[in-house]
Amino acid sequence: MARWLAGTNDVTQLFLAAGQVPDLVNLAGGLPEPALWPVEDLARIAGEVVRADPQAALAYGPIEGLPALRDAIARRFSRGGLNLARGNVLITTAGMQGLDLLGKVLIDEGGVIAAQAPAYLGALDAWRPRGPRYRPMRLGENGCDPATLMRGAQFAYVVPNFSNPTGRLVDLAERRALLAAAEAAGTWLVEDDPYGTLFYDAPPLPRILDLAGEGGGEPYDGRVVYLGTLSKELVPGLRLGWVIAAPDMIRALATAKTGADMCTGGLVQAIALRAFEEGLPERILPEVLALNRARRDALLAAMAEHLGDAFDWQVPAGGMFVWATARDPALDTDRLLRAALDHGTCVTPSSVFDPDGRDRRSIRINFTLNAPDRLHEGIRRLARAVAAIR
Amino acid sequence: MARWLAGTNDVTQLFLAAGQVPDLVNLAGGLPEPALWPVEDLARIAGEVVRADPQAALAYGPIEGLPALRDAIARRFSRGGLNLARGNVLITTAGMQGLDLLGKVLIDEGGVIAAQAPAYLGALDAWRPRGPRYRPMRLGENGCDPATLMRGAQFAYVVPNFSNPTGRLVDLAERRALLAAAEAAGTWLVEDDPYGTLFYDAPPLPRILDLAGEGGGEPYDGRVVYLGTLSKELVPGLRLGWVIAAPDMIRALATAKTGADMCTGGLVQAIALRAFEEGLPERILPEVLALNRARRDALLAAMAEHLGDAFDWQVPAGGMFVWATARDPALDTDRLLRAALDHGTCVTPSSVFDPDGRDRRSIRINFTLNAPDRLHEGIRRLARAVAAIR
Repeated sequence: MARWLAGTNDVTQLFLAAGQVPDLVNLAGGLPEPALWPVEDLARIAGEVVRADPQAALAYGPIEGLPALRDAIARRFSRGGLNLARGNVLITTAGMQGLDLLGKVLIDEGGVIAAQAPAYLGALDAWRPRGPRYRPMRLGENGCDPATLMRGAQFAYVVPNFSNPTGRLVDLAERRALLAAAEAAGTWLVEDDPYGTLFYDAPPLPRILDLAGEGGGEPYDGRVVYLGTLSKELVPGLRLGWVIAAPDMIRALATAKTGADMCTGGLVQAIALRAFEEGLPERILPEVLALNRARRDALLAAMAEHLGDAFDWQVPAGGMFVWATARDPALDTDRLLRAALDHGTCVTPSSVFDPDGRDRRSIRINFTLNAPDRLHEGIRRLARAVAAIR
Repeated sequence: MARWLAGTNDVTQLFLAAGQVPDLVNLAGGLPEPALWPVEDLARIAGEVVRADPQAALAYGPIEGLPALRDAIARRFSRGGLNLARGNVLITTAGMQGLDLLGKVLIDEGGVIAAQAPAYLGALDAWRPRGPRYRPMRLGENGCDPATLMRGAQFAYVVPNFSNPTGRLVDLAERRALLAAAEAAGTWLVEDDPYGTLFYDAPPLPRILDLAGEGGGEPYDGRVVYLGTLSKELVPGLRLGWVIAAPDMIRALATAKTGADMCTGGLVQAIALRAFEEGLPERILPEVLALNRARRDALLAAMAEHLGDAFDWQVPAGGMFVWATARDPALDTDRLLRAALDHGTCVTPSSVFDPDGRDRRSIRINFTLNAPDRLHEGIRRLARAVAAIR
C-alpha cells in the first residue's frame, strides 16, 4: 500500500462508530436540511431530461462537461469586469473532484501549499496522496503575512466565505490583499466557495474571482481558480461541481479529469442545467437562509447557556458551522469526541483540520441539519461530556 | 504544473480536431450503439427513484456506496466457490475511478506495475500522475513469463475479456497461470472487465475472480481486485462502476475515494439498483450481442477487402475492437492517423497504448458504433490513407 495511507486520521473510525449510537445528535457533519429540497421538481426533471436528449443524458460526454451547462455557469458567474467564456469552465464530479484534480495538476511530491488554517478536511484528504507540505495561513492573526507565505508555493488555498471549519468570513480588504499577494508571488489562488450563497446577516461580498476579473479582458485569464458546487445550493447527491479558471488551467485540469472519471455523468449535468434554467436554487434560497439563520441562533443560545465557561467562539455570519476553542489548553478535543459519543452526541475535533493532526484544542459544530430543540439537546449532552473529562 | 503533465500524449489533440471533420467515420472510440439503450425505462426509473427515496437519491451517501446496491452486486457476482459480502464491494464513479483509486492506494512514485501490453489507455491516464514504471506483459508471446514479471510489482493489470486495445481473449489456462503467478508473487492482480458480457462466439469464460474464489471462504479475501462498470452493459452516462476485492482493499480504496469525490451520486446508484432489479442489462443483452457480432463481421469483411495487403489481424471473439498490425515495420500509425483524418476517418494508433509512446506499428479499430455500410466506408477511406503515406 502507498505510504500516504499510513498517515490517515483514525477519527474517521470514530465517526463510523457514531452511526451505531442510538438517538445520536449529530453535530459533526456538514449536511444541509433535506426538508427544503425540491424533490418533486427534481424527480420530474430527471425523467424529462432523459427523454428530451438521451444522448446528452446517457452517453459519454465531453471531458470538460456539456457545452450548454458550461455556458450557463459562465453566464451565471460573469459580473462587473469578470467576463467568462465556456473555456473558463470545467464541470466536475462534485466540488471535491475539483480539489483532487488541482492536487494532480499542481503538486509534485514535497510541493508547497499555502493553506488557510485550520483547513478543510476534504482538501487535506484530496491532497494527501500527492504528499504536499503545508504553510498554514492563519488569516486575521497577528503576524500572518500571506504575501510571504505564498512565495514559492505551488498554490494558495482559501475558503473566504465562512471557512470550513471556522465559519470565518474573509473581509473585502483581506480579499484584495490575498489576490495581490498571489499576483506578486506568481502563484495560483484557489478560492473554494461551497457556502457562497449562505450569508445570513448581510449581502454577499464580491468573490476573489470577481476582484481578479476587474479590468480583465475576455475570456478571464487571472490567477484565481474558483471552485463551486451544487451541494449546498441545491442537493449534494447529484455530485455536481465546477471549476472556473484561466483556459490553460482548465485544459490541464481536463487532462487530469480524463484519468479520473473520463467525464461527469450526463444525466446529472442535464439535471443541473435544467435546475439552473428553472431557477431552483434561487427559489429555495430564502427558505434555506431563514432556516439556517434560526438554527444558528438556536445553537449559539444553547452554547451560551451550557458551554460558556469551557469554550470561546465567534458568531459566524453565514455558512454551516460554529468553531469553538477550549479555554483550558489541556482540554483534548479528540478525547472530548470519544466522551461526546458516550453521551449521545458528536462534533468534529480540530485535529482533522490540521495536516499534522496536532491541534487538539477546538471543535467544529454544525447547525444546519438539526432542529433547534435537537441542537439544544446536543449541546446539553456535549456539556456533560466536557464535565466528564475535566 | 506537476511534472507528469509534460508526458501526456498529443494524439488527444488530434482526436479533438476530429470533432471538426465533416462526415467523419469515427472508428477510434469505444462507444456502444445508443439505439439499443432502454431510454424510456431509464427515464421512468430516474423519476421513480427520486420520489421513492429522496434521501438515498439526493443526499450524501456512504463512501462505499448504497448498501442495497453493494448487496445486489455481491449477489450478482457470487457463484461457485466465490462468496461475496457487502464488504467486498465498493461503488465507484465509473470503472475509470476504480483505476484512479487503485493508483492512489498502490503506487508510490517509481512503483512497478506488471501490465498486460499493449495497455488500456485509460489505465495509463489514471496512473500517470502517480509516476509508475511498467513491466509489459505480452501475454501469449514467446518468453512472456507473468510469474517473473509480477515479482516485486505493486500489482499486475490485465483485461482478460477482449483486452482494450487488442481484443484478445485470455484463455482459461492462462487465467489460472496469472492467478497462480500473483499468489506466488504476493501481489494484487487487477482484473479489469468492462467487456465481460460481450462474448459473440462462445459462452463467457470464468472470471479470474471466480477462480480466486474457488475453495475460498466468506467473505472473499483473495488477491484478485475486480473492476466492473455499467457503461457497456447498460449506458455509460450514469458513470457507475464497482470494485470487488478483499475487505482490506475495499477499506483502503474507500479512504482514497473520500478524497476523490466523497461518494458516488445517490441518484445514479439508485437508478443502477433498480435497473438490476428490473433486469434491464439482461433484457438488452441479446440485441447488443447480435448487433455487435454483425458489425464485427462487417468490419472484418471490409478489412479483408481493403487492408489485407497492409495489415495483419486476429478475429476477436468479443468486445469492441479489432487490433491490426502493419506488415511494413516502417509504417508509422501516428502518421497514418493524420492521413486518415484527411481522408475522413479515424482509428486509434498504438502509441497511446504504450507507456513510452514508442509503439507506432498498430491500430485499434472499433466496430460497435457504426452501421455496416459506414464501417465499410471508413475502411475504404483508411485504405486510401494508407496508400497516401506509403
